Amino acid sequence: MSAETFLADFHHVATIGATPASGVDRQAATAEDKQTRDWFAGFAADHGWEVRVDGIGNMFALLEWTPGAPYVLIGSHLDSQPLGGRFDGAYGVIAGLHAAERVDLRVAEALQAGADAPRHNLAVVNWFNEEGGRFAPSIMGSSVFAGLMDESRMLAVKDLAGTTVAEALEAIGYLGTDARPEVAGYAEIHIEQGRILEREGLALGAVDYSWYTQKLDIEVLGEQSHTGATAMADRHDALVAASKVVLLVHDVTGKFEEEALVSSVGQLTLEPNSPIVVARRVHLVADLRSASPEIVRQARASLLEDIAAIAREHDIRINVNDFDIRDIQYYPEDGLELTEKVAANLGLGIRRIRTMAGHDSVAMNRIVPTVMMFIPSVDGVSHCEREFTTDADMVAGLDALSGVAWEMVNGALIGAESAEHDAGVLASGPAVSGAVAAGAGAR
Amino acid sequence: MSAETFLADFHHVATIGATPASGVDRQAATAEDKQTRDWFAGFAADHGWEVRVDGIGNMFALLEWTPGAPYVLIGSHLDSQPLGGRFDGAYGVIAGLHAAERVDLRVAEALQAGADAPRHNLAVVNWFNEEGGRFAPSIMGSSVFAGLMDESRMLAVKDLAGTTVAEALEAIGYLGTDARPEVAGYAEIHIEQGRILEREGLALGAVDYSWYTQKLDIEVLGEQSHTGATAMADRHDALVAASKVVLLVHDVTGKFEEEALVSSVGQLTLEPNSPIVVARRVHLVADLRSASPEIVRQARASLLEDIAAIAREHDIRINVNDFDIRDIQYYPEDGLELTEKVAANLGLGIRRIRTMAGHDSVAMNRIVPTVMMFIPSVDGVSHCEREFTTDADMVAGLDALSGVAWEMVNGALIGAESAEHDAGVLASGPAVSGAVAAGAGAR
Repeated sequence: MSAETFLADFHHVATIGATPASGVDRQAATAEDKQTRDWFAGFAADHGWEVRVDGIGNMFALLEWTPGAPYVLIGSHLDSQPLGGRFDGAYGVIAGLHAAERVDLRVAEALQAGADAPRHNLAVVNWFNEEGGRFAPSIMGSSVFAGLMDESRMLAVKDLAGTTVAEALEAIGYLGTDARPEVAGYAEIHIEQGRILEREGLALGAVDYSWYTQKLDIEVLGEQSHTGATAMADRHDALVAASKVVLLVHDVTGKFEEEALVSSVGQLTLEPNSPIVVARRVHLVADLRSASPEIVRQARASLLEDIAAIAREHDIRINVNDFDIRDIQYYPEDGLELTEKVAANLGLGIRRIRTMAGHDSVAMNRIVPTVMMFIPSVDGVSHCEREFTTDADMVAGLDALSGVAWEMVNGALIGAESAEHDAGVLASGPAVSGAVAAGAGAR
Repeated sequence: MSAETFLADFHHVATIGATPASGVDRQAATAEDKQTRDWFAGFAADHGWEVRVDGIGNMFALLEWTPGAPYVLIGSHLDSQPLGGRFDGAYGVIAGLHAAERVDLRVAEALQAGADAPRHNLAVVNWFNEEGGRFAPSIMGSSVFAGLMDESRMLAVKDLAGTTVAEALEAIGYLGTDARPEVAGYAEIHIEQGRILEREGLALGAVDYSWYTQKLDIEVLGEQSHTGATAMADRHDALVAASKVVLLVHDVTGKFEEEALVSSVGQLTLEPNSPIVVARRVHLVADLRSASPEIVRQARASLLEDIAAIAREHDIRINVNDFDIRDIQYYPEDGLELTEKVAANLGLGIRRIRTMAGHDSVAMNRIVPTVMMFIPSVDGVSHCEREFTTDADMVAGLDALSGVAWEMVNGALIGAESAEHDAGVLASGPAVSGAVAAGAGAR
């Protein structure tokens, strides 16, 4: 219940899969992921909460006060990037468990004082494979839950060693068969992974929209040859051309206002990858993000043109395919106002903020009224071992999440206000009302 | 015995590990390598020749006419690059077997006519792991034989899957214990892997020296971060810096006369290699080669300076280490003259030619008088599936190898002339006389 108990739990979980430089390595459905899952299940069992595991490995800890009522979900993900940070995702799940504990106590006090049971029940969720480092795409568990990705196709996704999601989940005992809880709303808290809150000295960010993102799958096809015997003029070196593509993807950001576009290549493999053989094929993935879909489209067009020029220059073939396009998503206005009200009550500094990273809340926001909150990240660094947030900032965030969860189980944001939520969704995709969406998400 | 039998054997071996585009994939100590080895052993057994396998997997087929006399070795390697060509290496071994068959018949005829037995015996060799694609470094089997690499260290070398050379050879049944034959001289025939012979319409090249080569092991250490959430200005992207290094390694050739230097990066890996994570580490290998050690040294110095500038620009660390330095090796003058004489007798056009690629003969030339011959490569391409040499060129090369082998078993090049051979070795390394070297090579 106390801040100390929460911090002790947080720092304990950070020891699971810990790396020498204070990070964690807990990729989806690995032995380390299993350990954090067991810890989550143990926490729920200790509190007498029912635990369910669904068919894509999402875990739910259920607090039921009003039999049959749908659930407000709070949580995030316990998996990490390879050599990732200990805050990304884990903070939101552990804060979720402690917020649920607080709300549970407050409900018990209210019931004892003669109040009605809350309008909604509460569940804490640990989403499967938010990171996507081992199994692509990322945000997998919540997207399957929200009906945005097909469960059987995701279960067949393989990692680089050829293991499928189904096999990996089965191996750690977390390929579940439980019914998904019917969902009425969702709230998540996460580290910012940027430096805006830190720079402005604010405790909290109310996330108002997610950036437009898209990836480009790029295949550079040269010709394999001998690094020693083949004359420079006779080569069609796929890696030389691919290196120019990597630099183009980086440099295209310079064509726009500072930080209006982020763009990078994080994955690249070459064949045959032998020290004395000129590469015949390089496969790489470029990731483009902006608050403006138009900027991404312009950057993409500029890249396609420049990549075609490189292909001509090197007399090789370069195939480029769009994938993983994620439209801008607006979070509902009444959720932003709720977060601001809770922050004001707690005396916490807050501002509205966009997210450049994807989150489980982006998927959930497609089907139910959703609140997304950020706490500060020191130096703005993330997806690395030196990711850091202070204990004080984590505790302030827990207070805010507890307040939002309390309001939401008692009806805030959900019900009459659902029309406003729908208006906020500008993205393409299934247009569902809050009620219909809840049914779809619960299958 | 006939050209047809030779060609039938060559085209049969090309079906082992064949790839759809007419290449082969027979990396060292794989199941496909085992198949060609079994074929080699079967050919020797059919001819009544003793087969030996030494402690690093080299195979020898022995023809003994003069008990106790040392052997002239002829051969090359049956292993290939991943998706490599069917001529590189295999041609030299199969031509070696057929040349041995021809010399054997000629010796039998001479003995019947009352001549003395040849001064030396003859052995055909299939060297282990010339390519180095699976296990680095390349030219492993012949270098161990020549005492240039340590056998136990090479047996402990691992492939990317963690399998050692010893385990891989054991698994295919070719980790031998046989004594190495005592060696008096070496001859090898190989495709040129360049387009000089083709351009000049010549059937044969007498290799006069090998290029100076060296590799650079380059490690680029950036900082892992989120491809979406991290501002461009806050990144230390190891792949962006590594791409600039790849282009530097390519562009440095432009500072010298055309084709005076070849330089490339064939191997590159990044960590964590996740589509949504900025890379923290890139490891790559650069390969520099020239006829002039001074040009390689200048290129290396220029690269070190430019790489340091990139490290400063990106505020990251780049470690560069020299390895696999191979000095220029001159082949003995009397071997060149012998090859020219044999070619003249056969009416084959010939020229002296340097080798930019490494070969087993470069290692053997360090310990015994060695002859190296090239036949033409169509378009000069190699280490790829479309590598090609005509049947007529292969048959002409077989005739030349048979002639050289006949002369060498009868004393040409070996014995009184060994002093000239030593004078030809300008490289550093163990300075050994032909006789001492033979002892060292035979352990």
